[in-house]
Amino acid sequence: MSSVFMQEISWQEFKAKKEDAVIILPVGSTEQHGPMLPLSVDAIISTGLAKMIAEEIGGLVAPTVCYGYKSAPLSGGGPLFPGTLDLNGATLTALVSDILEELIRDGVKKIFVMNGHFENEAFILEAIDLLSRKYEDVTFIESSWWDQISDEVMDKVFDEVPFPGWALEHAAIAETSMTMYFRPDLVHMERFIEDGVDEELGYSIYPASKCKVPETGLLATARTSSKEKGKLLAEDITAHYAAILKDRM
Amino acid sequence: MSSVFMQEISWQEFKAKKEDAVIILPVGSTEQHGPMLPLSVDAIISTGLAKMIAEEIGGLVAPTVCYGYKSAPLSGGGPLFPGTLDLNGATLTALVSDILEELIRDGVKKIFVMNGHFENEAFILEAIDLLSRKYEDVTFIESSWWDQISDEVMDKVFDEVPFPGWALEHAAIAETSMTMYFRPDLVHMERFIEDGVDEELGYSIYPASKCKVPETGLLATARTSSKEKGKLLAEDITAHYAAILKDRM
Amino acid sequence: MSSVFMQEISWQEFKAKKEDAVIILPVGSTEQHGPMLPLSVDAIISTGLAKMIAEEIGGLVAPTVCYGYKSAPLSGGGPLFPGTLDLNGATLTALVSDILEELIRDGVKKIFVMNGHFENEAFILEAIDLLSRKYEDVTFIESSWWDQISDEVMDKVFDEVPFPGWALEHAAIAETSMTMYFRPDLVHMERFIEDGVDEELGYSIYPASKCKVPETGLLATARTSSKEKGKLLAEDITAHYAAILKDRM
Amino acid sequence: MSSVFMQEISWQEFKAKKEDAVIILPVGSTEQHGPMLPLSVDAIISTGLAKMIAEEIGGLVAPTVCYGYKSAPLSGGGPLFPGTLDLNGATLTALVSDILEELIRDGVKKIFVMNGHFENEAFILEAIDLLSRKYEDVTFIESSWWDQISDEVMDKVFDEVPFPGWALEHAAIAETSMTMYFRPDLVHMERFIEDGVDEELGYSIYPASKCKVPETGLLATARTSSKEKGKLLAEDITAHYAAILKDRM
Amino acid sequence: MSSVFMQEISWQEFKAKKEDAVIILPVGSTEQHGPMLPLSVDAIISTGLAKMIAEEIGGLVAPTVCYGYKSAPLSGGGPLFPGTLDLNGATLTALVSDILEELIRDGVKKIFVMNGHFENEAFILEAIDLLSRKYEDVTFIESSWWDQISDEVMDKVFDEVPFPGWALEHAAIAETSMTMYFRPDLVHMERFIEDGVDEELGYSIYPASKCKVPETGLLATARTSSKEKGKLLAEDITAHYAAILKDRM
Amino acid sequence: MSSVFMQEISWQEFKAKKEDAVIILPVGSTEQHGPMLPLSVDAIISTGLAKMIAEEIGGLVAPTVCYGYKSAPLSGGGPLFPGTLDLNGATLTALVSDILEELIRDGVKKIFVMNGHFENEAFILEAIDLLSRKYEDVTFIESSWWDQISDEVMDKVFDEVPFPGWALEHAAIAETSMTMYFRPDLVHMERFIEDGVDEELGYSIYPASKCKVPETGLLATARTSSKEKGKLLAEDITAHYAAILKDRM
Repeated sequence: MSSVFMQEISWQEFKAKKEDAVIILPVGSTEQHGPMLPLSVDAIISTGLAKMIAEEIGGLVAPTVCYGYKSAPLSGGGPLFPGTLDLNGATLTALVSDILEELIRDGVKKIFVMNGHFENEAFILEAIDLLSRKYEDVTFIESSWWDQISDEVMDKVFDEVPFPGWALEHAAIAETSMTMYFRPDLVHMERFIEDGVDEELGYSIYPASKCKVPETGLLATARTSSKEKGKLLAEDITAHYAAILKDRM
Repeated sequence: MSSVFMQEISWQEFKAKKEDAVIILPVGSTEQHGPMLPLSVDAIISTGLAKMIAEEIGGLVAPTVCYGYKSAPLSGGGPLFPGTLDLNGATLTALVSDILEELIRDGVKKIFVMNGHFENEAFILEAIDLLSRKYEDVTFIESSWWDQISDEVMDKVFDEVPFPGWALEHAAIAETSMTMYFRPDLVHMERFIEDGVDEELGYSIYPASKCKVPETGLLATARTSSKEKGKLLAEDITAHYAAILKDRM
Repeated sequence: MSSVFMQEISWQEFKAKKEDAVIILPVGSTEQHGPMLPLSVDAIISTGLAKMIAEEIGGLVAPTVCYGYKSAPLSGGGPLFPGTLDLNGATLTALVSDILEELIRDGVKKIFVMNGHFENEAFILEAIDLLSRKYEDVTFIESSWWDQISDEVMDKVFDEVPFPGWALEHAAIAETSMTMYFRPDLVHMERFIEDGVDEELGYSIYPASKCKVPETGLLATARTSSKEKGKLLAEDITAHYAAILKDRM
Repeated sequence: MSSVFMQEISWQEFKAKKEDAVIILPVGSTEQHGPMLPLSVDAIISTGLAKMIAEEIGGLVAPTVCYGYKSAPLSGGGPLFPGTLDLNGATLTALVSDILEELIRDGVKKIFVMNGHFENEAFILEAIDLLSRKYEDVTFIESSWWDQISDEVMDKVFDEVPFPGWALEHAAIAETSMTMYFRPDLVHMERFIEDGVDEELGYSIYPASKCKVPETGLLATARTSSKEKGKLLAEDITAHYAAILKDRM
Repeated sequence: MSSVFMQEISWQEFKAKKEDAVIILPVGSTEQHGPMLPLSVDAIISTGLAKMIAEEIGGLVAPTVCYGYKSAPLSGGGPLFPGTLDLNGATLTALVSDILEELIRDGVKKIFVMNGHFENEAFILEAIDLLSRKYEDVTFIESSWWDQISDEVMDKVFDEVPFPGWALEHAAIAETSMTMYFRPDLVHMERFIEDGVDEELGYSIYPASKCKVPETGLLATARTSSKEKGKLLAEDITAHYAAILKDRM
Repeated sequence: MSSVFMQEISWQEFKAKKEDAVIILPVGSTEQHGPMLPLSVDAIISTGLAKMIAEEIGGLVAPTVCYGYKSAPLSGGGPLFPGTLDLNGATLTALVSDILEELIRDGVKKIFVMNGHFENEAFILEAIDLLSRKYEDVTFIESSWWDQISDEVMDKVFDEVPFPGWALEHAAIAETSMTMYFRPDLVHMERFIEDGVDEELGYSIYPASKCKVPETGLLATARTSSKEKGKLLAEDITAHYAAILKDRM
């Protein structure tokens, strides 16, 4: 069986599948994820999940958007950490829009955008909304992976440590576990340091330097992360999206 | 004492206060809010709160942005309801950016953006982020009013009906109560019909017509709304922002 | 009878009227108008006239655009007066375009843009021109109120003081009288000081600081303004637009 | 003496003069001017005047912008006449902005924009305003030639025919006479037909087809035009601008 | 016979020809071309060729775009030479797009863009590509004149001096000879100095000041240029394009 | 030794190297490359070379831009082949600009953009030019790999088949050989079919359907490609860029 990744197949292989298949576009970021995780965690997870979902439903995965919208201090550490490379909102919207429009011009009718970076969502939806007015016969679904986890799985993942809320779950147990599952070679738990934020502010403040973020860039603990938890999460999320895509497209 | 609303005072009155005062920009929307509420609920609430906060801290309120970003089906009913007039993301960002930059060119150093429409937030923050790179000595705070409510007040407001989550709290108890408090003449509870959404989808789907929204446009019940609850909310929220603005600016 | 203001009615009330009604969008500004008038004169007058016209023809008034294009030194005092908050041209065009396009998507076929700020006009017309190419079955009319005054009324308004030309008629007799008519509580004639500009330059010069504008911001006298003159103007202008809209739409 | 036209001299000749000289940018249009005049009347006149002014004050003339903003039905005949090629507002602003910024980057400090097409003005001023914020030591003057004509000259030009107002003075006596003066080879008075508009509407209506424009494209008579009147106008206008530029730059 | 230049004819003459005729848009630049050539060489050549081609095939020439995209140091001398006035890419694309779209709205179906400045090409093609998606029944051809020269003519033109490659053929034998042919009055060979670049770098480096360009702005020799060579080139190029346009349109 | 790929290292590892290191941004495309090569050839080659160069000079590689500008029919097969996903020019410029500006804001002073797709170049250079005006102390080098191959290596690579010119060298010997070297698992020479274009047209024609491209998408033969030739090319190109970067940065 040929690869589900568009970048690994020829145009003829793509052509053979494009009419009926769901095309999945993973969108990640290049963003600090603490001392023990690589800058591409959001791309790794969204790509890994997209591959599993594509294999499940007979879809294809377009090349991952590996730069995302601006990291906010209290959901990603923010722009003050070197290595975080953020796009402006208009750029991300244009990029996603161009990619999806090209797919549509190729005859694709079913598009799923798999988001892996919290701050991306509004700018991805803007692209989809504007395209949707123009291409009324195309179905678009967009979702962030943390919106499709079973309560039972959540309980197992947060078995020892309480769930801090998704805004603070940055480089924490869920992301670390899934990175361990998808790219174990890139996780260095020996560099992990306990760190975190006490509570969300409930407002945004600029300049960013006025917002106290832990020095490590960790907003909540990653202790108790494991490859097994990563597998549990990935399989649960995959099952949910496979069901949604089969049902709605 | 002269008005806190910029649109009600002369340029000389503005000039006398601008250097030290916090200038508050309320951002609302023109969006369906069910059969019993007017289209301008988000503008009414953000303006009403801005006035109370300005009076508390000696600030001024800039003219309200009364059009907002696109209403999403499952947090505002969406574009299919006539009367919902949505801006594109780039337009809202440009609008907020121009207004704030003009305030800064007038010498203002302390800006608070009071948001009253969920979907606005990412596009307001984009404007602030870009300005903040250019004007490093200006402090900007942005917040949505539902992010600053005490637990005790929440318990009193949702005394009979369980809190449905903020995404579904559209034209529901909190918004209805505050509109009763600020503009009782515009609320027609006799037109209220019990309606609502069972649960959030956990994904976005386009075209918007694929998303089932109740015919009334109500995502959760507004039963048990009251002017007293509106006052309770408004005073609690005002106290929180007054404290934040005094502390951080 | 329900309100003619969209922001005061529900989506269902709007829906019931939208197909046949003319929707009027008032466009104002936030701009210095001398020591005796508020910053929102242009919004007050365009909104007040829009209301009278809507009542006359069974139309509806969309929320007023209360920020406008850049005030020019010799027709509005310019950017050097604190409190004048100007939009860039592209922003105003995008804002008007988005609002009108949303009305059209709701099924509206008759749109009237009531302008109250001289410098807005080119950027409003750009929005309309671009929309008109796309929506050929929609009729758009745009006008500034000073373009529809009878000669007899002009003679009565400028009974003692000669008419200085519309470019210099800023915060002068016509605007002051209509503000007295629509919002008497916001006019402070006791602060009025005789001031003005001798003649128009016939060219624009930048930086703006090279253009001598009177310290008060008044380009011509407002002496002899009165609520009665405001009423006379408002009723005359209303009658003209009501006739035009009935005839052409 | 070398040419005043930048396009006719070498970079070294430009370099030798640029620091002290006023650089004049003529802005015209490509627009119908009735059956007896060429499409480039606005470019011919603004270029011809720019040359005379440059010779008078020792300035240089940058290549003429020969496309302009959209012709309005009642001040230029509008888009329905073939051969009228209009730019969008954002394009004209960007074009003028890029040209002027390049002059400034070359060290130019004195810029005069000589406008020959009514509808251009707002979009040229937008370009200048934005540049002026960035380059505070550059002086910009912008003007349309009809704003600098002596009353005596007006009386001589409109000796037989009454002046119809500048909006309707399109392809009429002033423009025809100056084209006769600058490019007599391109004027064909034998094709002239008496035609015109009775009065201005006082509002804009779209689609453009709803606006009745005479079939010839002539909004007022060109009868009594002459090369002598063209010379009179050109010399009067040149004298005014030469005086203004010497005084203010 | 009337002129082939749109700017020299009336709207009625344009109207009579537009349906069947090829409309040619010449695109040049304002760019240093050494001490002996004027700043407008690229406009002169593209306009001169456009005229010859139009006369050959019964076409019309739209007003020349006389500003072009940024001159690169090693194909045009770059931005450091005073008098080089460069447009941003987005501006050139918008300008060409607006002009061509207006032609299309007038009913034109055959468009030829005659490019005379190397760096323009990508931005012209972007404009054409985007229009072509919208207007599927219009044929667009774009070419730069150096892409249509016969080998025999090249041999005659470069009879004594070896051909340096088109990137370095700036203000050199081909351009100088054609400027001698089209505008002999603007060529001053007595100011010519032998100068040039040894070889292309094979990369671009910024800031531009890091790129060594000869002080004269000449990248290759213009020695052996002549009006006769200019005629030879112009006639050969014209014949090629006339054949292509007859064949493909 | 840690990875040269930014996406595989933590923010702290990036921080430790960023000040002195050259950061390399590979820019590819998603474009048809015939029946035997994957859609991501341009990304594979630019990334593979970037890695080799980074290892040679102690640099780091930013995440590859894996979508590029529009494929032209006669240098890439064009938009009619499914699977070719092209960005608009403005999008590519914005994307590259945002990424590079973020690197600069992190303190990076030496940037190399390694281009692997012919049509990208103008839009990448536009991004760099605009940034370079703002950040004068940063050195940017941009190059396409085919501009840095030794004549000797060219002779060895094109030992049996004549070199067709770079425009037609699409999915041909150079690209196929380097893909064999970097990702042998993705090359399927058994699917290769002899095909090609006779000669370049010397002009561009739209709509794209008017341009005859071979059905396979192959513009020149890939016969005689080999992993050894790929290695030869990659090592030669790497040596050239390593020398340039050491010399100029």
